[in-house]
Amino acid sequence: MIRFVKGHGTENDFVLLPDPDGTLVLTDDVVRRLCDRRAGIGGDGVLRVVRSAAHPDAVAMAAEAQWFMDYRNADGSAVEMCGNGIRVFARFLVDEGLAPPGELAIATRDGVKAVRLAREGDVTVDMGPTNLPPSERKVTAGGHSWPAVEVEVGNPHAVVFLDDLAEAGPLDVAPSADPPFAHGVNVEFVVRRGPRHIALRVHERGVGETRSCGTGACAAMVAAARREGEGAAGAAGLSYVVEVLGGRLTVTERPDGHVELTGPAVLVGAGTLDLHWWEA
Amino acid sequence: MIRFVKGHGTENDFVLLPDPDGTLVLTDDVVRRLCDRRAGIGGDGVLRVVRSAAHPDAVAMAAEAQWFMDYRNADGSAVEMCGNGIRVFARFLVDEGLAPPGELAIATRDGVKAVRLAREGDVTVDMGPTNLPPSERKVTAGGHSWPAVEVEVGNPHAVVFLDDLAEAGPLDVAPSADPPFAHGVNVEFVVRRGPRHIALRVHERGVGETRSCGTGACAAMVAAARREGEGAAGAAGLSYVVEVLGGRLTVTERPDGHVELTGPAVLVGAGTLDLHWWEA
Repeated sequence: MIRFVKGHGTENDFVLLPDPDGTLVLTDDVVRRLCDRRAGIGGDGVLRVVRSAAHPDAVAMAAEAQWFMDYRNADGSAVEMCGNGIRVFARFLVDEGLAPPGELAIATRDGVKAVRLAREGDVTVDMGPTNLPPSERKVTAGGHSWPAVEVEVGNPHAVVFLDDLAEAGPLDVAPSADPPFAHGVNVEFVVRRGPRHIALRVHERGVGETRSCGTGACAAMVAAARREGEGAAGAAGLSYVVEVLGGRLTVTERPDGHVELTGPAVLVGAGTLDLHWWEA
Repeated sequence: MIRFVKGHGTENDFVLLPDPDGTLVLTDDVVRRLCDRRAGIGGDGVLRVVRSAAHPDAVAMAAEAQWFMDYRNADGSAVEMCGNGIRVFARFLVDEGLAPPGELAIATRDGVKAVRLAREGDVTVDMGPTNLPPSERKVTAGGHSWPAVEVEVGNPHAVVFLDDLAEAGPLDVAPSADPPFAHGVNVEFVVRRGPRHIALRVHERGVGETRSCGTGACAAMVAAARREGEGAAGAAGLSYVVEVLGGRLTVTERPDGHVELTGPAVLVGAGTLDLHWWEA
């Protein structure tokens, strides 16, 4: 029997597989079958929970971070980092008693990440610095074009400000950028809801419109703050509420330029997978 | 903690809740949240496993059938019967040791149903008699119209024969019938694959295109058999292989006119739901 936990952060959902000693043989095919929403457990990806010392991709980080987030996309491919995923991962470690609440260092394929959480409630992750390169791009979706703000949060984003989120249309086709991004781009459509309060829809490259995107929320916050003429002033940083389709996040830009993503991380249930199913 | 099992029959998937004494308070809202594919466990519906004697809708059937399938749609509404659901339900009873393999009587809101299964493998359910009323209807989808065969399998179906399943188009809009059905209709698009072998796509009324539909497979088989000039002759009955998007079923028309639906019923995993989540 294989143990699993199902969890989500603003409806970005994951199958967690506790595997401290890294003994599970997690082929792409098993990942795809686990993430299948009808014939499997269902999720946007799999978060395997492995001791850093037990995984070749993480052993060099073992002194700094005891646990490695082996994140795999629903298609089986290995993923560097996921802002919602790591929050769910941290909640699992604390709820399971594998790590104490407070400040936590977690190894990922994008390096060691700092996470902060209490015994209960929201989880915060340091998403690192952002970059807004000078840029004059347009984004087109559903026959309409808008100027876009380019933001890098590890990955590339184009942020478009609208008066109404419906203006972006159904987003069943990927928006295009002009000039285009060499490796594609994530596009956020953003409206202002009030002071330091925005809402967004996101089209993730290679995926489509999603319920939530951690880096997208960070990109939108930074672009919105610059638009309002707000810097990262003040020792406490600058916080925005960011509504996504799947819930509500808070993004804080720290004085050192790092952005922190804060939001719910919910463990829905835990169980065991039938080994017959796993091996079929 | 609330126990659950996740299972599917040809990718028609369910959250099973073992509740022998009928003590769970299963509000529509809890059902919706359980069936949510991101924030819950995910499924087309919930199958609560209750002793017939412990449920007001089933107590009159308790002498005949020990267990009651309390089937709820993903929107929380109570459903009479489901050909794929009852096969998964029966597999659970046998795997759990709540019923012996062999012939099994299960209480549903549509009366007592006969199911047959071994210790392992496929599960067969008696779906009752079918009716092909004289009918001259057309079905239109994506701008194309075809003549349809009307079949009743408890619920109404219109079966259209095509040369290629792609002819039905994307089916993102419900097909229409002319003359229309008073309470809507399930539409099956069917191609012949070989002798006594068909494949189909189904648009379920009020749902959309689905991976599988038990009554739809039965309707398609009966319509196909009549089209080939085959009756239900022979003591063993007449069996067709019916491919659906989510797998492969066998439909047998018995000499007495009942149709039997046979196919896989897979229990993927079992677990517990966090009571905090349940009560939230």
